[in-house]
Amino acid sequence: MRREITGFSNPTVKYLRSLREKKHRRREKRFLAEGLRLLTDARESGRLPAMLVMAAGRDPHTLLDALEKDVLAAGGEVIETTPDILTKITGKDNPQAVTGVFREFDTSLGNLDRHAAPIWLVAQALRDPGNLGTMLRTADAVGAGGVILIDDCADPFSVEAVRASMGAIFTKSVAQARWDEFLLWLRSGPGQLVAASLRDAVAYRGADYTAPCFLLVGNESRGLPQEYEDACDLRVTMPMRGRADSLNAAVAAAVLAYEALARLDP
Amino acid sequence: MRREITGFSNPTVKYLRSLREKKHRRREKRFLAEGLRLLTDARESGRLPAMLVMAAGRDPHTLLDALEKDVLAAGGEVIETTPDILTKITGKDNPQAVTGVFREFDTSLGNLDRHAAPIWLVAQALRDPGNLGTMLRTADAVGAGGVILIDDCADPFSVEAVRASMGAIFTKSVAQARWDEFLLWLRSGPGQLVAASLRDAVAYRGADYTAPCFLLVGNESRGLPQEYEDACDLRVTMPMRGRADSLNAAVAAAVLAYEALARLDP
Repeated sequence: MRREITGFSNPTVKYLRSLREKKHRRREKRFLAEGLRLLTDARESGRLPAMLVMAAGRDPHTLLDALEKDVLAAGGEVIETTPDILTKITGKDNPQAVTGVFREFDTSLGNLDRHAAPIWLVAQALRDPGNLGTMLRTADAVGAGGVILIDDCADPFSVEAVRASMGAIFTKSVAQARWDEFLLWLRSGPGQLVAASLRDAVAYRGADYTAPCFLLVGNESRGLPQEYEDACDLRVTMPMRGRADSLNAAVAAAVLAYEALARLDP
Repeated sequence: MRREITGFSNPTVKYLRSLREKKHRRREKRFLAEGLRLLTDARESGRLPAMLVMAAGRDPHTLLDALEKDVLAAGGEVIETTPDILTKITGKDNPQAVTGVFREFDTSLGNLDRHAAPIWLVAQALRDPGNLGTMLRTADAVGAGGVILIDDCADPFSVEAVRASMGAIFTKSVAQARWDEFLLWLRSGPGQLVAASLRDAVAYRGADYTAPCFLLVGNESRGLPQEYEDACDLRVTMPMRGRADSLNAAVAAAVLAYEALARLDP
């Protein structure tokens, strides 16, 4: 279905704006992805938005035409609106000329096939959606299976996380679980749990990684709880030659992931 | 000097708020650092704020007392205000209970001593202040000399960059230069320029890094201009096993930096 929206007070505008907030995303089980590049990534990965919102007067683009055609063919909705209203929806002065509304994916741990990849990234209590999206992007780059989010993490379906993932939200697995649930699942099959840690750790370089290898990083300010570290099969540490004793969480995950990749799948 | 501010319309409140904007920072040559942890990092690195702003009714803290004493002894100003006014200054609902105003550092290339460290990070047209701060933090971790910013980059003195640096803004060198100026400076002494690149590149792992090694990453969306890559001594590439062809800029810099560290200063 195709329709136009010209009024700021249209309920669809309100609905789209509400999806910037987590509680509304949870209720609607929908999330936003902004910009033609991200939407094209989604389409090429077989994910189409349930609703596509475009600004009138945009530059024509063959990729956008293809997207529009596919969304309509799949029974989705295509909405044309004014640049002003799109600005209101996205909350940005220079909104990307197109926004999509996607159904949230199932993030149950049970959906993961641990044998699908040699590496998995695991984050505990990660609070920054940019870090989360960056970890998804890194997961794509190293051929990891995806990202497992432990305890209370940022929302992987937030606009910031989706943007930072550079499309990996559509191609990589995302799972959410409490620690106990994760540990139970992990120990029900093969899997090495490796913590980025300072306590009782070996050098990350040349450590004995084995697949499927689950690389665990902790919260941005507190790191990992000691009992979580104790439950790991291996604790590895990176050189810290300066004043600080930690790296950005997404950076630590990436440095570890590239080292594990070199060992497990060179 | 010690004084209290109780009114929202006080000119100092306006001044402090203005420092969140780049044009005002440039004019005043001052920047903000928020939170006791960051201010303590600064103090331990020998950098004291010219002005220290604290909320009344805050929890007492020996580190804050020490900071206050040092600022007053150095002829700086200590301002006590209400939590509401501090919220207005920081633009955050839960402001950290203390904020400092620092003099901007000189970021001329001529100040750098290239022999001071085996590794330097270089970013071209880096737009995200969080990425910039994260690169500074990584520079600290790998014992790099600092970060050199080429062309139009995010402001290293923005609140976001300072925060993401986790104090490294106070301990690492930061320089800003146009590309031509940088190249002239670089070639006036020893130095290997290494680009993270996809064109005509060798594997980053085990590549022939030599100190002082300048690791160059490009803009978040466009990467490096080809002529910049052509001017490099070495182009290295990281495995990309997924759909995307690039990493987050701060992640790419970190993965490269840890590899160079392992080769140059194991």
